[in-house]
Amino acid sequence: MSGFEIIKRSKKYSARQGKIMTPHGIVRTPNFMPIGTRGAVKLLSSQELKQAGVQIILANTYHLFFEPGIEVLKKFRGLGNFMKWPGPILTDSGGFQVFSLNEWRQVLDYGVRFHHPKTGKEIVLTPEKVIDLQKIIDSDIFMPLDECIPYDSSYKKAEKAVKRTICWAKQSKKAFRFRKQNRPLLFAIVQGGKFLDLRERCAKELINLDFDGYALGGLAVGEPFKETRRISKKIVSLLPSNKPRYLMGLGEPSQLVWAVLNGFDIFDCVLPTRNGRHGLIYIFKRLKKWRLEDLLKKKFYQKISIENSVFKNDKSPLDKKCGCFACQNYSRAYIHHLFKIKDPLGQRLAVIHNIYFYLELFKKMRELI
Amino acid sequence: MSGFEIIKRSKKYSARQGKIMTPHGIVRTPNFMPIGTRGAVKLLSSQELKQAGVQIILANTYHLFFEPGIEVLKKFRGLGNFMKWPGPILTDSGGFQVFSLNEWRQVLDYGVRFHHPKTGKEIVLTPEKVIDLQKIIDSDIFMPLDECIPYDSSYKKAEKAVKRTICWAKQSKKAFRFRKQNRPLLFAIVQGGKFLDLRERCAKELINLDFDGYALGGLAVGEPFKETRRISKKIVSLLPSNKPRYLMGLGEPSQLVWAVLNGFDIFDCVLPTRNGRHGLIYIFKRLKKWRLEDLLKKKFYQKISIENSVFKNDKSPLDKKCGCFACQNYSRAYIHHLFKIKDPLGQRLAVIHNIYFYLELFKKMRELI
Repeated sequence: MSGFEIIKRSKKYSARQGKIMTPHGIVRTPNFMPIGTRGAVKLLSSQELKQAGVQIILANTYHLFFEPGIEVLKKFRGLGNFMKWPGPILTDSGGFQVFSLNEWRQVLDYGVRFHHPKTGKEIVLTPEKVIDLQKIIDSDIFMPLDECIPYDSSYKKAEKAVKRTICWAKQSKKAFRFRKQNRPLLFAIVQGGKFLDLRERCAKELINLDFDGYALGGLAVGEPFKETRRISKKIVSLLPSNKPRYLMGLGEPSQLVWAVLNGFDIFDCVLPTRNGRHGLIYIFKRLKKWRLEDLLKKKFYQKISIENSVFKNDKSPLDKKCGCFACQNYSRAYIHHLFKIKDPLGQRLAVIHNIYFYLELFKKMRELI
Repeated sequence: MSGFEIIKRSKKYSARQGKIMTPHGIVRTPNFMPIGTRGAVKLLSSQELKQAGVQIILANTYHLFFEPGIEVLKKFRGLGNFMKWPGPILTDSGGFQVFSLNEWRQVLDYGVRFHHPKTGKEIVLTPEKVIDLQKIIDSDIFMPLDECIPYDSSYKKAEKAVKRTICWAKQSKKAFRFRKQNRPLLFAIVQGGKFLDLRERCAKELINLDFDGYALGGLAVGEPFKETRRISKKIVSLLPSNKPRYLMGLGEPSQLVWAVLNGFDIFDCVLPTRNGRHGLIYIFKRLKKWRLEDLLKKKFYQKISIENSVFKNDKSPLDKKCGCFACQNYSRAYIHHLFKIKDPLGQRLAVIHNIYFYLELFKKMRELI
């Protein structure tokens, strides 16, 4: 049966170890979702994702709507079959993407209206349509359409967005209906910009509507981490403790540790993949003993740029203690060389390593909770 | 012990089935070498090469000299260790590359002088130096420095190039010296442009010098295939039948069949890899029975462009009967999608398939000989 179960709670922190049951399998929490926006975690095969320890990936309803398009996903009976990813998928609604559009778009009470980025054709996305699309995608965790505003929006704008987000969440819940027990989950997204009272109001109203999980949106969008902390620490304490909590878009490993210790369960971020593509590699420092407080207080990792010429002759793997495919097979010197000659194999190895690093961090945290 | 052994000869054609023994393993012939110019078959890991059935790869001395450079290759004790390719490697000398340089270069009796393509520094490559470089690369089959001229060069120019190529081959043989029995092989390259008498003279003189194998160079460089056939059919008949014969740079599958049936043993070409990167996929047609004469006379394959929108919804693999990683795991529609969104995973799958296709063709030919 789908749902969330808490296995263990940390004594010292608000962190919890749990599992999310979905139609396509179990996700141990806390956990991290690599980004496969359009049905591909850039450069990687689904076998490589599995091998790197990935339990769940994130895809984007808005992007999939354009490419490969709904007809293709219908024909394949879902994204998992299409991309040959057998595990769980969380689909972001695309609210964030629609609201990032520079081109003309209109936010109306019944949804958003915008132009197709390529054809220019007018498109309307309503909360109901976004839910229907996620059904076609055969997603495991649905996100409702929300109004995602810039972090420093005015109170008035934020208030309006909160109202709309709540209203759309309600409509989404109505459109989301499954008879079977082994059904996907529907989360709600707490918005409200930088205003704690709006955030609180949004959270409370969404909690009243009783969703399967709660996400914090509109954070990790460029604001100082102090601000992210201020909002998320307050809001997480309001969210039901028996539901999974998702801090969208975070972040750097040190930030993720903070968020886990404050009670968040799942995360997504472009950093491991995007940094990998740019040759930026995450490496654990050698701590004598791994303890949650060390992860929180000590600098437990570093980043190296593999393109740096100091690695030209370096026979060691990216990280000597790492068990990823890249570290088990290739040297820093070779990956450096691949970046120099711009062979995408280099990016692939770097991304595999970084994803493995992130998932190792979460595995460690789960063990330590 | 290194060398060449003929296992079987075709009754009807000049084709032979054999094996080349090298320090890093055995190459069944006829066979095809994917191109790994700078120590990487673009996009692919060495595990993927192995899995696709690759027995030997080609790398380029000239390119490796610049990147990763000799110091790195020395430190790793060879290219195989560096790129984690455990099998045999043939290294082209780079003659072809040097002579393709648009920038200033001088061909002198003792070697070639040119400017470093990036630093502008003057560089001299002599036949001896090229052999020494291949020792550092730890190559299995060495190619000597040769003077590679455009196909339609004048008689005078071609004659001069032949003289130099013979002279350099002699010097190369002197510089190539191994005490151990399990030593690499040294081939010679027959030049002579479009002039049969020069080609013959070149072949005879090189045969007198007794090399481990003979290559035909300066062909498949843009001339009509009729011309390639005219030269290669004549010259192959002069080459010792107990030595491997290598037709450099060929080609399309149908051309390769012709060349195998006329007695050539090994080949290299950019087509399967480059075409794959451009979404051009080789697919076998269904023949009732595979016979050498059918391969020679019938159109036994086709090429499809996976970017074509007819594949948008196509659930079948690139080729239903293919055993490659791409066909065993992914659909045409997904690979089409990957090309549309420019994810290099698409190119990777296409290249894996094309290499597998080429190697299947050679496997079939070996079985049929």
